[in-house]
Amino acid sequence: MSFDKKDLISVNDLTESDIYYFIETAREFKKISLKNIKKVPTLRGKTVVNLFYEPSTRTRASFEIAQKRLSADLLNISIPQSSVAKGESLKDTILNLEAMKPDAFVVRHYESGAPHFISKITNASVINAGDGINEHPTQCLLDIMTILEEKEDIRSLKVAIIGDIYHSRVARSNMYGLSKLGADIYLYGPHSLLPRRKDFQNLWNVKFAKNINEAVKNADVIIMLRIQKERDSHHSIPSMEEYRNFFKLTTDLLSLASKDVIVLHPGPVNRDVEIAGSIINANKTRILRQVENGVAIRMACLYILLGAQKN
Amino acid sequence: MSFDKKDLISVNDLTESDIYYFIETAREFKKISLKNIKKVPTLRGKTVVNLFYEPSTRTRASFEIAQKRLSADLLNISIPQSSVAKGESLKDTILNLEAMKPDAFVVRHYESGAPHFISKITNASVINAGDGINEHPTQCLLDIMTILEEKEDIRSLKVAIIGDIYHSRVARSNMYGLSKLGADIYLYGPHSLLPRRKDFQNLWNVKFAKNINEAVKNADVIIMLRIQKERDSHHSIPSMEEYRNFFKLTTDLLSLASKDVIVLHPGPVNRDVEIAGSIINANKTRILRQVENGVAIRMACLYILLGAQKN
Amino acid sequence: MSFDKKDLISVNDLTESDIYYFIETAREFKKISLKNIKKVPTLRGKTVVNLFYEPSTRTRASFEIAQKRLSADLLNISIPQSSVAKGESLKDTILNLEAMKPDAFVVRHYESGAPHFISKITNASVINAGDGINEHPTQCLLDIMTILEEKEDIRSLKVAIIGDIYHSRVARSNMYGLSKLGADIYLYGPHSLLPRRKDFQNLWNVKFAKNINEAVKNADVIIMLRIQKERDSHHSIPSMEEYRNFFKLTTDLLSLASKDVIVLHPGPVNRDVEIAGSIINANKTRILRQVENGVAIRMACLYILLGAQKN
Repeated sequence: MSFDKKDLISVNDLTESDIYYFIETAREFKKISLKNIKKVPTLRGKTVVNLFYEPSTRTRASFEIAQKRLSADLLNISIPQSSVAKGESLKDTILNLEAMKPDAFVVRHYESGAPHFISKITNASVINAGDGINEHPTQCLLDIMTILEEKEDIRSLKVAIIGDIYHSRVARSNMYGLSKLGADIYLYGPHSLLPRRKDFQNLWNVKFAKNINEAVKNADVIIMLRIQKERDSHHSIPSMEEYRNFFKLTTDLLSLASKDVIVLHPGPVNRDVEIAGSIINANKTRILRQVENGVAIRMACLYILLGAQKN
Repeated sequence: MSFDKKDLISVNDLTESDIYYFIETAREFKKISLKNIKKVPTLRGKTVVNLFYEPSTRTRASFEIAQKRLSADLLNISIPQSSVAKGESLKDTILNLEAMKPDAFVVRHYESGAPHFISKITNASVINAGDGINEHPTQCLLDIMTILEEKEDIRSLKVAIIGDIYHSRVARSNMYGLSKLGADIYLYGPHSLLPRRKDFQNLWNVKFAKNINEAVKNADVIIMLRIQKERDSHHSIPSMEEYRNFFKLTTDLLSLASKDVIVLHPGPVNRDVEIAGSIINANKTRILRQVENGVAIRMACLYILLGAQKN
Repeated sequence: MSFDKKDLISVNDLTESDIYYFIETAREFKKISLKNIKKVPTLRGKTVVNLFYEPSTRTRASFEIAQKRLSADLLNISIPQSSVAKGESLKDTILNLEAMKPDAFVVRHYESGAPHFISKITNASVINAGDGINEHPTQCLLDIMTILEEKEDIRSLKVAIIGDIYHSRVARSNMYGLSKLGADIYLYGPHSLLPRRKDFQNLWNVKFAKNINEAVKNADVIIMLRIQKERDSHHSIPSMEEYRNFFKLTTDLLSLASKDVIVLHPGPVNRDVEIAGSIINANKTRILRQVENGVAIRMACLYILLGAQKN
C-alpha cells in the first residue's frame, strides 16, 4: 500500500483504504514502544516543526515522543494567541520556517482551516494536530485503531457520539472517518451544541438521536466528548450541574448498550461530568489505550508522510 | 554491586552501601563530561519525562544534560502551580503519560510526597528532583560525593547545617544520608525555622547546636542553606538584615572550624546573606564542584535505575 | 584556513579572511539542509547552551536547527528580563552552567556587551546571537553570504542601510563587516535614530546620506531595518504613518538603484511600513534566502568554534 498525498489535514481527504493503511502501519509501530530500546532510525535527519498556536500538553507530548522514537530532529514553537496580533502573519511565519528546510509541520491552531492554508504555502508535509472546531485527524485514526482492537469490523457497528458536538473537532473527524468505514453514527448533545444537518448532508449514516437512551441503546461504541468551557463563548451550557443531569454517561444508561460496549473519550475526562467515575473504574473505558495508540498513530503518520515513499 | 529498587524517592530508603554505589558510579560518569565527546549510548531508546510542577533552571538543566550525555530521549513538561487547579488530577496526568511508555519520570513537585504517590501508580522509575519541604535525594548524593573528594571518610566528620532547616529538603535529605554514613550533625538556624526533634528522633547523631559558634566549632563541613522567601509563608524571618546579622557565615566564624573545612551550599547563593562574599572569593566553598558533581550523580541515578539491571 | 579565537562576539574582531572563511564553510553546510538526510555527526557529544535573555523565535529556531543538524546536544534556557532582578547575577549563572561543562554558549541579551562579559568568565566558546544595540555577528555573516551569491565582490559595491540605525545591532555589525570588505556604505534614517559620527570614525567608507534618494541612487544592495517600537523608549519616531511616508522603500525609490539591486531585511518585515509589499512580491527582496543562509552560517560558526580545530 502507499499514500501519495503530502499532508494529513482532514479525514475527509482519506479513502477507506488510506485509513486502514495508517492503522496497520501504526500496529507495527506500537510494538516499538513496548521494546527495551524504543527507537528506530527511520526518520534520522528529518526536521519536524511542532507549531502550536494553542496550549497543549498531551497532544504535543504524544507527537514529540513519536518523533523521538523515530529519531527525527524536532523544533517546538509555541505561539500564544495573545502574541499573534502584534506579530507577523501566519503566512510570513511559515515562509520563514520553510526557508530553514523542515520536512514537516505539525500544526495546532485555534482557527479552523489554518493547516489547509499552511499546506498550500509550504512544500513540507503538514499534519493537522487540531484546528479550531474543524478536525483532529490523528485523534480519529487512533480512535478507529482502538475500536478495531476489539471489534472485527467497523461496518455494522453502532457508534454513539455524545456531548458538545458543535465545538468538537474530535467529533467531526470521527463522523467523517467512521461513516466512511460504514458505521451507524448517532449524535446526541445539548440542542444548542449540535451541528446543523446541512453541514454533513452527504453523511447518510449519521443520525440525530432523539434522546440519550436512543443514542446509547445497543451501541457498540460510545464516544463521550469533553466539555470545553473555554470554547463555549456563547454560554450554550446553562451549568455543569445541568449538563451532568442530562448528558453524563451513567451506569444505568450504559446497561442499555451492547454488552461488549466500549467507551472512548479524547481526554482529559471531567470525571462525573461526562462519564460516571464508576464506569471508568469498571474498566469500560479505553481512554489510556487511546493514549497508547496515539503515539503509534503519530509515528505511523510521520513515517507515511516523510519516510515511506522515499525509502 | 546492584540496586534493585525501581525508584529514587528518599535517601531514607537507601542503605549505606546503596549510597556508596551511587557515588562510585557517578565518579565514572564524571569523566565523560571531561572528554572531547561527552556522550555515551547507554540509555539510547529510553524515554525520560521531566515533570516539573515548580520552576527550576538549574536542576532541570543538570538532569537534561545528564540525560543527553546518556543518549536518552527526553520530554520536558512544566505545569505551573496556577494551572493545576483547573486541570486534571496528578493521578490522571501520570496515567496518561504512563500510557506513552516512558522509562522514567524525573519529578519536582511543590507538595511533599508527590513522587511517592506517583511511584505507586506507574511502572516507570521515579526520581525525586525535590518535593515540597520533604527530600531532594540527588542533592544529598552530590553533596556526599563532593565531601568524599576531600575527606577520606564521612564517619567521624562534624557537619554543621545552618539556616532555614524547616523548609529545606536539602537539609532533610542530608540529615538522613550523612547520619546514615556516621557523621555528627549539628543543626542551627532561626528558632522558628528548626524542625521538631520528634521528626527525626531515630537520627541519634543529629543534634541542635545552642548557638552558631557551637555549630561551626571544629566543623569539617558546613552546609549553608538558601533562604527561600517564597516558602516562608508564615514570615518566620523578621528581615534579611536581621538574618544576615545572626546567621550569615562570616570569616570570623569560619576561623573556628577545622582548618580544612569546606563550605557547601545548594545554590543559588544570596551572597553576603548566607555566606560572606570574602569566603566565596577565598575558595573555601565547593559550590561549583557541587554543580559539576550534580550532572555526574544524575547520570549515575538514571543509569542505575534504567540501564544497569537490564544490560 | 583556520580561526583560532574561542568566540564570535563582534564582527570587529574578524579579519577580512576570517569573514570569507566563515562564508565558505557555510556554503558547504548549506548543502546539508538540501539533502534527504539533513544531519552530520560533526558535533556529536558537544553540549551547546542557548541562553536567551530576550524572547526570540526565529534566531533561536535557526540556531537550534543548526545544532541538531550537526548532532550537538543542546539546552535551551530562557530567562525573561522580568525575572533577572530577583535572580542570581549573570556571572553566577554562567559559572554554574560552566560547571556542567558546556562546549558553547549561544547568547542573546538585552544589554550590549553581555556576551563579551560572559566570554571572559567561561572557557566555553561564546556566540553572540544579538546583544542590546551592539552587534549581531551571525546576521552580518549571513547578509554578506547572501550578497555574495549574486555579486562577485563586496569591494566597490554601494550598500544603503536605511531605518532605525541607532538601535540596530544588525546595522552596526553590517557597517563593520561590509566596510572591512570594502563596500561603500550610505546610512539614512530619522535624524533622531542615526548613530553619532564619532562612534565609527575609523570606518572611512561609511557615509551619511543627505536624503533617501542619495542613499538608494545606484545602490547595489539596500538593507532595510526593522522598526523596533519595543526599543524606542525615547519615542524617537512620531508615528508609524510618518515613518512610512519618509522612510519606506517604494517602487519609485527602488527605480533609482542599480538595475540588479537586491533588498535585504533582517525580518520580520512590517510590510508596507519598511518595504512596499509590491517590492516583496516583485521578488526584489532576499529575505527568505537570508533565513536559509542563516542556518548554514550558524552551522559554520558552531563547526569552526567547536569542531574544526579539534578534528
